[in-house]
Amino acid sequence: MRLARFTRPDGREGFGVVDGEQVVDLAARVPSLLTLLADPAAAATADGDPRFAVADVRWLPPVTDAAKIVCAGLNFSTHAAETAHGAPTTRTATDHPTLFTRFPDSFVGAGEAVVRGPEGGQLDWEGEAALVIGTPGRRIPEASALEHVAGWTCMAENSVRDWQLHSGQAVAGKNWEASGALGPWVVTADEIGDKALTVTTRLNGDVVQHDTTDHLTFPAAALIAYVSTFTSLRTGDVIALGTPQGVGFRQDPPRFLRPGDEVEVEVDLVGVLRHAVVDAPATDGS
Amino acid sequence: MRLARFTRPDGREGFGVVDGEQVVDLAARVPSLLTLLADPAAAATADGDPRFAVADVRWLPPVTDAAKIVCAGLNFSTHAAETAHGAPTTRTATDHPTLFTRFPDSFVGAGEAVVRGPEGGQLDWEGEAALVIGTPGRRIPEASALEHVAGWTCMAENSVRDWQLHSGQAVAGKNWEASGALGPWVVTADEIGDKALTVTTRLNGDVVQHDTTDHLTFPAAALIAYVSTFTSLRTGDVIALGTPQGVGFRQDPPRFLRPGDEVEVEVDLVGVLRHAVVDAPATDGS
Repeated sequence: MRLARFTRPDGREGFGVVDGEQVVDLAARVPSLLTLLADPAAAATADGDPRFAVADVRWLPPVTDAAKIVCAGLNFSTHAAETAHGAPTTRTATDHPTLFTRFPDSFVGAGEAVVRGPEGGQLDWEGEAALVIGTPGRRIPEASALEHVAGWTCMAENSVRDWQLHSGQAVAGKNWEASGALGPWVVTADEIGDKALTVTTRLNGDVVQHDTTDHLTFPAAALIAYVSTFTSLRTGDVIALGTPQGVGFRQDPPRFLRPGDEVEVEVDLVGVLRHAVVDAPATDGS
Repeated sequence: MRLARFTRPDGREGFGVVDGEQVVDLAARVPSLLTLLADPAAAATADGDPRFAVADVRWLPPVTDAAKIVCAGLNFSTHAAETAHGAPTTRTATDHPTLFTRFPDSFVGAGEAVVRGPEGGQLDWEGEAALVIGTPGRRIPEASALEHVAGWTCMAENSVRDWQLHSGQAVAGKNWEASGALGPWVVTADEIGDKALTVTTRLNGDVVQHDTTDHLTFPAAALIAYVSTFTSLRTGDVIALGTPQGVGFRQDPPRFLRPGDEVEVEVDLVGVLRHAVVDAPATDGS
């Protein structure tokens, strides 16, 4: 089952189930998307539920403003190696995961354009698979960690490299508003189980990243166990598993995203997340 | 004026104004604490508002679950120097602020105990002054940045050092649930203006940190301008200014917090934030 948040043709926010080429809006009788993530059985559709063509809705990221979004960095050894090249202060992850966080508003929905700001020109792609928590927990054992997963989604965990390297902490490069994308939906865990997921990133149709979660240094269950040691994971929280080798700033010469580019992050069994790139309008400001 | 969130004697959550030795609960007629932070004029009290003795309420952190909490690291050069000692991978901030983020649930309210987890024994104190955003903005110019501040509060921005050093990113050491404290209230900006604030941390009555925000590498207005370049600051978001020299892990021998310790973070013109320290109960777990 595919759970999603979207803007309806009438401009109202909806959420519910993707049913083929239609979305079913459950907002009139279910409290929130979190209800569905906590208990997918609540996503049973009924005859009276409003339906819209997929082509007529705009996807929203399947998260709330309060979601904890934790991203694993350097979690593919091949990407850790390409990152370390020429960046002596960056440690590669070995004993413990390298984590950073993103604000929910750093993501747009699938099909929307991500925004390159005039102050940070080195916008780079990072395709990733991400899990969404269903059953809350603290100090979740690794052996039962996947039981806490509501489902899986695609993340364009794009980074603004110049700002990421402003200091030793990645925050400023990882949290540009509307710099990444998340979605288009959450595929429920029953369709994935413990299968490895293949992540493919395409830039204007060319494959630039391609690897499987079999090659993660810290697999999903290990990340859930580690993160939940220090913080409670709640329904709707997100853990991104890390990006494979092939980001733009380690190409020769470096290649960053620019207006007109189209990025696709495909996670097999989950879906394809597409986004364009635009420059921030000159009028953007306070 | 002092704005606060609290648990009332009847167990309900309230928010409003601290009036001498009483708190006035405005929850029945004002949508949220954010309303008051956006417009302190909304905090005018009326005769019918419920009042409680300060001694009878328990403070809650003056933030919502969706607050962006951005902390400046290494923002006092004296603390940056003590941190760099023996930690070759930590950069000192010079050209740009060093930022990390904390989840709102990493803080308890004033007077509550912070929790030391069994997996992370190196819980260290970090007294700080923090600002709370009133007027939202993006790309806020430094010259007008203080106009966006609703008020000021005290932060015990405690860190779990062993976990902070698990990787190059501080997230895992900065986000232990209930490891820090925030409050007890927000003193509105009209009482502070652009005055420097003196931050004093006491451990069991002994002064361990003492400095003024005159000595910050990046003052409040510079931080607001920098952070709002990449992310929108919204009403209720928090920026912590950084901790002075004198943390425990740079003492010889290192001194970490343990059950029975009492920490006070005093920010003059704002107030005193006190917290005890307890160990996580053995039954804590999922």
